[in-house]
Amino acid sequence: MFQSPTLEGLVDELKKLPGIGRKSAARIAFHLLRAPREEAEALARRILDLKMRVRTCSLCGNYTEEETCAICRDPRRDGTLLCVVEQPSDVALLESTGSYRGIYHVLHGVLSPLEGMRPEGLRIRELVERASSGAVKEIILATNPTVEGDATAFYIQNAVRDLPVLVTRIARGVPVGGEIEFADQVTLARALEGRRALE
Amino acid sequence: MFQSPTLEGLVDELKKLPGIGRKSAARIAFHLLRAPREEAEALARRILDLKMRVRTCSLCGNYTEEETCAICRDPRRDGTLLCVVEQPSDVALLESTGSYRGIYHVLHGVLSPLEGMRPEGLRIRELVERASSGAVKEIILATNPTVEGDATAFYIQNAVRDLPVLVTRIARGVPVGGEIEFADQVTLARALEGRRALE
Repeated sequence: MFQSPTLEGLVDELKKLPGIGRKSAARIAFHLLRAPREEAEALARRILDLKMRVRTCSLCGNYTEEETCAICRDPRRDGTLLCVVEQPSDVALLESTGSYRGIYHVLHGVLSPLEGMRPEGLRIRELVERASSGAVKEIILATNPTVEGDATAFYIQNAVRDLPVLVTRIARGVPVGGEIEFADQVTLARALEGRRALE
Repeated sequence: MFQSPTLEGLVDELKKLPGIGRKSAARIAFHLLRAPREEAEALARRILDLKMRVRTCSLCGNYTEEETCAICRDPRRDGTLLCVVEQPSDVALLESTGSYRGIYHVLHGVLSPLEGMRPEGLRIRELVERASSGAVKEIILATNPTVEGDATAFYIQNAVRDLPVLVTRIARGVPVGGEIEFADQVTLARALEGRRALE
């Protein structure tokens, strides 16, 4: 389609990114062609740096550039509260709420027999070890409210059932700012189940 | 937000791309972190190659990796028909229709006093030279149907008025597959003006 194999090649690479179709890929490629050389080089360098510098925290599994991440190293965080999430991006999301002061444990996936993801492939053994240390008092299961996320939460609940820790699951219900009319039946049923007395 | 300056830096660079907001940028960055190293490296290399290898065709101004582009070099193209477009991406779009067999002239912009784009900044002098060679019989003005695109078309029409070439403008009208109900008034007016007898 284009008169340059390099341009074609870049469009093909960009198309592999999530949410980028052929039209967006072409738009980005043409933007980079018009952009100053420094901007394109900065982007390329950041992508290369990413694979060289970013590693997973040896404690929680979150992305970091040190041996352990800044959250695990922060003495002001509450080490008795451990929030289990599927992906490092979930940590960023929860942190952006500013309402959680505990620490995290990133599984890097969910149980999914169809996709061949078994418990050994997730960081569940490390989670049980951390929960056994005596420091953790509550494990908050914040996996997604999907079949796989629920199954993973259930598996973890069983794996730590003999430990003296409270295991909780994040609330499911009608999204704040959403309208009941547009909530699906399962969400509505969960919202009813999880109702709380007004104080 | 993230526990890695490199990750933050990549998200900042990705946000500069057209159509990419902070959420999409984060999604792409996390995708690259999970992707095989080769995929990320291929993307970075393509971006660097782009700025090194891609240049503009010395005849038409389209992107190419040679002195002239494959369209200008193709002896089967009709050199008497010259289609004037704003950007190289427009060439790709018109080529994708498969219905044009002439050659192109890329302006790399439109007249825009507000953004300081004057005729000298576009490739209009080169266009007049090409039109003066005697080979070109028709200039098709395919700039966008915007105020700037129309002004640029009008400027070119004047610049070549003394040359023995036919100057045409692409048709404006109701988009194929669109509904009259959703067309704006100006488009509808143009569609009426440009009506053609059915054969």
